[in-house]
Amino acid sequence: MDHDRLERQIDFLLEIDGLKEVVRRTYLVSGRRRENSAEHSWHLAIAAMLLAEHAAEPVDVARVAAMVLVHDVVEIDAGDTFVYDTEASAGKADRERAAAGRLFGLLPADQGSTLRALWDEFEARSTPEARFAQALDRLLPVLHNIHTAGRAWRENGITADRVLERNGHIAEGSPILWQAVRRLVERAVSRGEVEPGSGEAR
Amino acid sequence: MDHDRLERQIDFLLEIDGLKEVVRRTYLVSGRRRENSAEHSWHLAIAAMLLAEHAAEPVDVARVAAMVLVHDVVEIDAGDTFVYDTEASAGKADRERAAAGRLFGLLPADQGSTLRALWDEFEARSTPEARFAQALDRLLPVLHNIHTAGRAWRENGITADRVLERNGHIAEGSPILWQAVRRLVERAVSRGEVEPGSGEAR
Repeated sequence: MDHDRLERQIDFLLEIDGLKEVVRRTYLVSGRRRENSAEHSWHLAIAAMLLAEHAAEPVDVARVAAMVLVHDVVEIDAGDTFVYDTEASAGKADRERAAAGRLFGLLPADQGSTLRALWDEFEARSTPEARFAQALDRLLPVLHNIHTAGRAWRENGITADRVLERNGHIAEGSPILWQAVRRLVERAVSRGEVEPGSGEAR
Repeated sequence: MDHDRLERQIDFLLEIDGLKEVVRRTYLVSGRRRENSAEHSWHLAIAAMLLAEHAAEPVDVARVAAMVLVHDVVEIDAGDTFVYDTEASAGKADRERAAAGRLFGLLPADQGSTLRALWDEFEARSTPEARFAQALDRLLPVLHNIHTAGRAWRENGITADRVLERNGHIAEGSPILWQAVRRLVERAVSRGEVEPGSGEAR
């Protein structure tokens, strides 16, 4: 047994425990607190297992699950960037690339490369798996908002037209899920849970 | 598109959000709070991806990951049972079976059966995948304890001999990980972070 290899694997596992302390804007469905990026990633992996049949193209479910499990790990260094925060989104790519270098670099080289490649693929949306994983990553916060009467949207002044504009690429990963999202957002508008918006980009 | 099918899938995803609110005895590696079962499941799935090479027998990593992702879902109804709590462990099987029936029953029948079968397999430790998944499920809390100076063990009066006794089946899933756990527990004893114990079973 290569002890150094196991030690590096364990060090990585201890390090990524930090993802449990990265808090997102989205609230739990119960509304009791905001969710963190580790539990969000768990939720996404189950969603991948259940919703893969709705992907735009056939996908390897195990790869989608692996991708969503690691996709947020960079936030341990780079923090969570709210998808509607255009200012913070500016430096996001650089911050996250540096984080990926450090974090995946903790692993034995072969495993570090594998995880890094999964993360790059997710970011680049270059495969059916990545496009579907990104669709899930956008779907779940919409569901959470819909079931907390639009709480995170209202707290951050996000209107329905912004939601639809920023989440449009769900359609690339899954037209069926995009249709469902549009329906849910329209219903939230009709219930007064989210402002329709003026149509102008912020 | 079968709207009812998608609705059932989404209802299940909303329902299992509750796992984020099931709090375990184990502390985060940072010690700042206890961890919940959803983020623990995420951690296990990454551990499965990284440590599969140490399994006692060759395992299908994707199945191990799927298994650990769903293995704790029953706690939404049944609560988390501390592994060293022999009294609470008594009614655990019945509580969890009822929970599995209700929760997996929310899904379309085919998917409900698939997830239920994964959960049954994990519980029965009937395959190399299940034995390895169970080994991971025991390894991580040990690592968390080791890196918080034995905090959850000390708070609950757990001694080193109890730790080794209750986690012995790690060896069935991975002799290498079991060896690592023994080494870590011995080190914790030598540092005074966990009481060695009298050798008597509680």
